[in-house]
Amino acid sequence: MPNVSPGDMVLLLALDRKRYLIQAKPGDRVHTHRGWLAHDDLLGRPLGRTICTQLDEPFLALEPSTYDLISLLEREGQIVFPKDAAQILLRLNLFSGRRVIEAGTGSGGLTVALARAVMPQGRVYSYEVREEMQTRARRNLARLGLLDVVELRAGDIATGFQETDVDALVLDVREPWLYLAQARAALKGGGFLGIFVPTVGQVSEVLATLPGQGFGDVVVEELWQRPWKPVAERLRPADRMVAHTGFLTFARALSAEDAAEWWVPGDKRLMRRLRVREALAARAAEAEDETVDAPPAGEDE
Amino acid sequence: MPNVSPGDMVLLLALDRKRYLIQAKPGDRVHTHRGWLAHDDLLGRPLGRTICTQLDEPFLALEPSTYDLISLLEREGQIVFPKDAAQILLRLNLFSGRRVIEAGTGSGGLTVALARAVMPQGRVYSYEVREEMQTRARRNLARLGLLDVVELRAGDIATGFQETDVDALVLDVREPWLYLAQARAALKGGGFLGIFVPTVGQVSEVLATLPGQGFGDVVVEELWQRPWKPVAERLRPADRMVAHTGFLTFARALSAEDAAEWWVPGDKRLMRRLRVREALAARAAEAEDETVDAPPAGEDE
Amino acid sequence: MPNVSPGDMVLLLALDRKRYLIQAKPGDRVHTHRGWLAHDDLLGRPLGRTICTQLDEPFLALEPSTYDLISLLEREGQIVFPKDAAQILLRLNLFSGRRVIEAGTGSGGLTVALARAVMPQGRVYSYEVREEMQTRARRNLARLGLLDVVELRAGDIATGFQETDVDALVLDVREPWLYLAQARAALKGGGFLGIFVPTVGQVSEVLATLPGQGFGDVVVEELWQRPWKPVAERLRPADRMVAHTGFLTFARALSAEDAAEWWVPGDKRLMRRLRVREALAARAAEAEDETVDAPPAGEDE
Amino acid sequence: MPNVSPGDMVLLLALDRKRYLIQAKPGDRVHTHRGWLAHDDLLGRPLGRTICTQLDEPFLALEPSTYDLISLLEREGQIVFPKDAAQILLRLNLFSGRRVIEAGTGSGGLTVALARAVMPQGRVYSYEVREEMQTRARRNLARLGLLDVVELRAGDIATGFQETDVDALVLDVREPWLYLAQARAALKGGGFLGIFVPTVGQVSEVLATLPGQGFGDVVVEELWQRPWKPVAERLRPADRMVAHTGFLTFARALSAEDAAEWWVPGDKRLMRRLRVREALAARAAEAEDETVDAPPAGEDE
Repeated sequence: MPNVSPGDMVLLLALDRKRYLIQAKPGDRVHTHRGWLAHDDLLGRPLGRTICTQLDEPFLALEPSTYDLISLLEREGQIVFPKDAAQILLRLNLFSGRRVIEAGTGSGGLTVALARAVMPQGRVYSYEVREEMQTRARRNLARLGLLDVVELRAGDIATGFQETDVDALVLDVREPWLYLAQARAALKGGGFLGIFVPTVGQVSEVLATLPGQGFGDVVVEELWQRPWKPVAERLRPADRMVAHTGFLTFARALSAEDAAEWWVPGDKRLMRRLRVREALAARAAEAEDETVDAPPAGEDE
Repeated sequence: MPNVSPGDMVLLLALDRKRYLIQAKPGDRVHTHRGWLAHDDLLGRPLGRTICTQLDEPFLALEPSTYDLISLLEREGQIVFPKDAAQILLRLNLFSGRRVIEAGTGSGGLTVALARAVMPQGRVYSYEVREEMQTRARRNLARLGLLDVVELRAGDIATGFQETDVDALVLDVREPWLYLAQARAALKGGGFLGIFVPTVGQVSEVLATLPGQGFGDVVVEELWQRPWKPVAERLRPADRMVAHTGFLTFARALSAEDAAEWWVPGDKRLMRRLRVREALAARAAEAEDETVDAPPAGEDE
Repeated sequence: MPNVSPGDMVLLLALDRKRYLIQAKPGDRVHTHRGWLAHDDLLGRPLGRTICTQLDEPFLALEPSTYDLISLLEREGQIVFPKDAAQILLRLNLFSGRRVIEAGTGSGGLTVALARAVMPQGRVYSYEVREEMQTRARRNLARLGLLDVVELRAGDIATGFQETDVDALVLDVREPWLYLAQARAALKGGGFLGIFVPTVGQVSEVLATLPGQGFGDVVVEELWQRPWKPVAERLRPADRMVAHTGFLTFARALSAEDAAEWWVPGDKRLMRRLRVREALAARAAEAEDETVDAPPAGEDE
Repeated sequence: MPNVSPGDMVLLLALDRKRYLIQAKPGDRVHTHRGWLAHDDLLGRPLGRTICTQLDEPFLALEPSTYDLISLLEREGQIVFPKDAAQILLRLNLFSGRRVIEAGTGSGGLTVALARAVMPQGRVYSYEVREEMQTRARRNLARLGLLDVVELRAGDIATGFQETDVDALVLDVREPWLYLAQARAALKGGGFLGIFVPTVGQVSEVLATLPGQGFGDVVVEELWQRPWKPVAERLRPADRMVAHTGFLTFARALSAEDAAEWWVPGDKRLMRRLRVREALAARAAEAEDETVDAPPAGEDE
């Protein structure tokens, strides 16, 4: 992206920190709280430049990052914040070529992050029952050229997902505990599940429902982001910050052939149960199969 | 990754939360604190399965996520933590096809995250002066099949980076303020700079040096990650957590043709200076160029 | 406390941060991980001095603060941490002369903080059903000379508290929601209630039970304390911290003559209900009593 | 405080969380954003009652806690927040009878907390150079009946404090590192020093100046307070919170007769130095004094 072309997304930053996200179009103007800017001032020139409104108010023109896009996309209602979206991408092992399901689509903020992580060869299957939300998400994705990475689906996930053997699945819905069996059916063995909910009651419901659904290695966490005032000689944190966005729950799909129904490190009752079961299984296996005890050719770590 | 093949990385999770990262190799054994596991028990079968040591101790075999890889890679000294690496990827707008410089390579933890974000078409140029660190990073990247996405460079960055017009650049070195001019020279106009340092004194040095180096939109922040105990009926945060990993500073390269030397929203002295300069420039421009005032064909918000 | 006298509590601080709390007694020795110290080295001399073990290992002898006492008292099980105890003292408006009930006593850590806040003229009524806990608490309070400020009570609080019209009441028990009516009966109109619980489920139970029990102005909060490494040139937070101690809930006893059963700012359903009720009451009152509309003699703030 | 008397402070809480702090006076009215309330509606009746404005808007009348007073006092500029004041009281070991110095007085928010902690027998010596601030603080303290516990002093602390052998001293000034020698001179051996500053640069200056000034056991920390939404069925943290108030530094005055100039656990250079010095001193002492090795009568842990 050396110079701005028609259709490019541009972030405009005012001196008072207000931000505008536009799509460059010859002849257009963007109206700000400090006057208007001509898109033609941007087109054909590099980003990182200061341009001024007709009132001589300066704006810095920048390439919007995925972080900016999630923050600024046209939206409605609660969204997954960039800091949480970032963590989800690494926790769910998303990279080029991966196939991931998302429900619901919402305004498409997380969808953008998922699509950029798995493109060009991967695929995002994004489910949403509310039609007007899907329309908004489609518009947002179209502006960013991401529609060929994302399949927008309108179905009700209570009846299951169309895909199977997907690498990862994110539930960003009000009652995620209702869809755990469907999620397990869609995931590959060892696949990654991520759940985003705002209240602790929802986390409790998820944790109460997960055992017996074929998931293990459950992690619950929250992330905070504290901004600092970027002033060398009076360095200190900002005065106010976001206190809460949501709680993140992660788990792994157990393989269908696995004996365990639930696997939470530290759950002592489980440990006892599992040990008995596994000890029995291991002994039964030993009786039939001697290869386990064959002398190894080498060792690792 | 339907079934485990030779060369695949596998994460082994014990009931007491201890984790092992291995590369599957026929005939090998991995020795744990609970006995040994045969790699052959993993090969040719799906992940998400429980396998047992010769002492009947169960381990859950999983695909390691990028998050796990950063946490568990063979390493030395301080590393960029996964939560910070995740934020860096979104803030620096990294996705498939991007070109990014990293200095220093260290043990390659952040390099893995960068490589997985920009692959298959992008490129990571990673600089490191300490030879033994580079050797370790090369080994880590080779095990993950990422060496064709990463160029490991041994040069001293004080003399500048070999690349130009890169999309983004991360400084994870002790004195990042010494390399800001070199970073600016390597970045495209509007390119993304990220800096990771552990102490507030280093943040102050960076902020004191940035003005005049051609960067703007400076953000300083810290992220915390609080684990919760994943137990439905006694839901509560964990007892202890990491109190600090480092401070993140982000900035954007201003275009070479831009009049501004520094752009920090809220910096009042700058605002006055910029307004005067821009007002003069804008008026001069108006005298020569009437197209700015041309009636727009449409508007964009 | 100019010089150390027999019976004084002394805090001994080792160079590796290990701390010992002792009661000075002529002829005694304290055995540390670095050798032993003679109490006679402390007696009759000021605090703030370095003394050494027979192995030449230095210890700094200090007056223990209330903060230190809560941290170091002989104890068992979970305790209210100093940061939370500190907040409770200010939130419950405790100062010399106040009467406060505490249940349960536990090891007496919070009791010490309460007693020091209300002494010499106030009184702490501390309830505990477990006899061995009360014995330990009595020993702790005796060492600190606080037994004449505290009444240790053994009764079961389910049958109510003996005191009435107390200024404040703290519940540090497993199921505080079972004792809200008893708490209301013991508190004066407008009295202060504080509740400490470790899990979110307990907070939810408390919040579900409070309406209708005669409390208002409900506040729920948590406090964190992040230590920093006290090194000027490499200033940064410590590596690890306590992630969680407990959740604090505060409320005020509504006066018995008040029409309202519940008062939570922002609770919209309540607001509607209250407005209707109050509007009716106010109109009825107006009909009988014209003094409300009398011109005021002056105004305040 | 059974019923409200003339001169009592009363907190008025509106349904939208807005709070008013008044001093009850017969015939007065308080004007709120929802109409006015007659003080006579409060006088002679208990607190914890709902009263209504002439517009039928309800307010809950409450006794203000020390926490409320610090938050709501008539003030100017930055103040020490209640959570930090609470921690200072416990860390500085303040209770009835203690003598504490504070500089500067500011609007008197922290002064109120200190006075209530040490009254009735203790004393607060509060220094302030700005006359208009002292006037405001005097007014605030007078309304709360605390003027007989507090000595307001106008002197410049650069020339030293008038008091000696005080138990504790709090510096809440812009450049606290300039007054460490004066603070040491005023404190008793082992006395408690507390410093409140908003920026990390100030913390660094303090830490760089403390060595050699006769202080030890240095602690730096910050506290956060996260409010939760008090709703049982949708329990979750509030959306926004205060990100920063200030950094707290605590230290203890070393006794004048102590050999050590500085005592920071974990400071390795110091540890070496101290060990040599103490070893020499201890051996010299042993040569003269054999009582140290006398068999102890008992032991204390």
